[in-house]
Amino acid sequence: MLKMYGFWRSAAAFRVRMACNLKAIAYEETMINLDAGEQHAPDYVALNPQAVVPSLILEDGTLLTQSVAILEYLEETHPTPALLPADPVSRARVRALALIWAADHHPLIVPRVRSYLRDTLNVAEADRTLWIQHWFSEGLRIGEARMHGDPLTGAFCHGNAISLADLCLMSQVMGAKGFGVNIAGYPTINRIVDNCLALDAVTRALPLKQPGAPAAH
Amino acid sequence: MLKMYGFWRSAAAFRVRMACNLKAIAYEETMINLDAGEQHAPDYVALNPQAVVPSLILEDGTLLTQSVAILEYLEETHPTPALLPADPVSRARVRALALIWAADHHPLIVPRVRSYLRDTLNVAEADRTLWIQHWFSEGLRIGEARMHGDPLTGAFCHGNAISLADLCLMSQVMGAKGFGVNIAGYPTINRIVDNCLALDAVTRALPLKQPGAPAAH
Repeated sequence: MLKMYGFWRSAAAFRVRMACNLKAIAYEETMINLDAGEQHAPDYVALNPQAVVPSLILEDGTLLTQSVAILEYLEETHPTPALLPADPVSRARVRALALIWAADHHPLIVPRVRSYLRDTLNVAEADRTLWIQHWFSEGLRIGEARMHGDPLTGAFCHGNAISLADLCLMSQVMGAKGFGVNIAGYPTINRIVDNCLALDAVTRALPLKQPGAPAAH
Repeated sequence: MLKMYGFWRSAAAFRVRMACNLKAIAYEETMINLDAGEQHAPDYVALNPQAVVPSLILEDGTLLTQSVAILEYLEETHPTPALLPADPVSRARVRALALIWAADHHPLIVPRVRSYLRDTLNVAEADRTLWIQHWFSEGLRIGEARMHGDPLTGAFCHGNAISLADLCLMSQVMGAKGFGVNIAGYPTINRIVDNCLALDAVTRALPLKQPGAPAAH
């Protein structure tokens, strides 16, 4: 069975959980408490020098890191159901949308960046919150602009099948909600999120459904 | 012929230029002067709502964005020479290395982030420079830790063939040098960079070789 090191709140771990569920890949998740700094424990850093989650351990002990690289690996080794379309241009559109969120916006709000803002730049808490909300909003604004009115957009980010883009969008939207971002102004994104949330494979992977998460209220 | 909107200094455009050169794909590059804010011109934003480079226009007018998505597209449509290895685990290692730089570190130092630090958080120039140098150094430190002593590392990031990981590493190292980062402490990375710089396809793509770049000195 695949072994994953994750954390309930981690957007990147959430993406991998959704992919595993959609593809019916069994995995076991060990939680690395990012709030308690467990990602900096020597044993974990020896495994993953970046001190981030997720880390995925294959059955032969091989380590995989970086959620988007893991998603591509799962797609290549468990192609059904496909999370990438068949033709190269469509695949490029899905990957571009995925990377708008996973590469260009999510890394701006992760714990190591928030810590640098607080500890090195002495940015006050209110301004750190505005930073987080700004970059979440920017990622959603740009995604909406790319998808709204584009005939390639369907029930999901690309057509009517869930793809890697939707997994990255879901992780970004759940993060945005967690940090109090108003997401009302993105109708295309809200429609897609509703369609994702209709899937059991997605809801089982939600951050607040994981061990260690605060009780839903 | 492919048409690319780029900029001499853009790390992401540099990655795409290297891939096109390695695969002998003809392209024509139009420079969007990021220093002059040309990425915010209405015509360009209508094309690319994210207001970033590169944008790649295929011969039928299709728009592709996000450098890593473009690299994957070029790999799928022009598979020789391969910039990804054949087996899924090796591909995952290459993609993870590529994303450590292209996703987790490069987006922290791009113009829109530097502008937010300056204009919204009122971070002084010296502290903005430290921010940039910190994240470049972190990306290189982590990459060195992942690759040093790993038997899978060869003349290049993965074995003895240049891959997408090397293109992302090169773009990060050239950016680090441009911002005055000391890269002496990363012997594996320096060795790989030297091997990349021995390739004409790489040197022709270098930022300082492009129209609009300051004269080399």
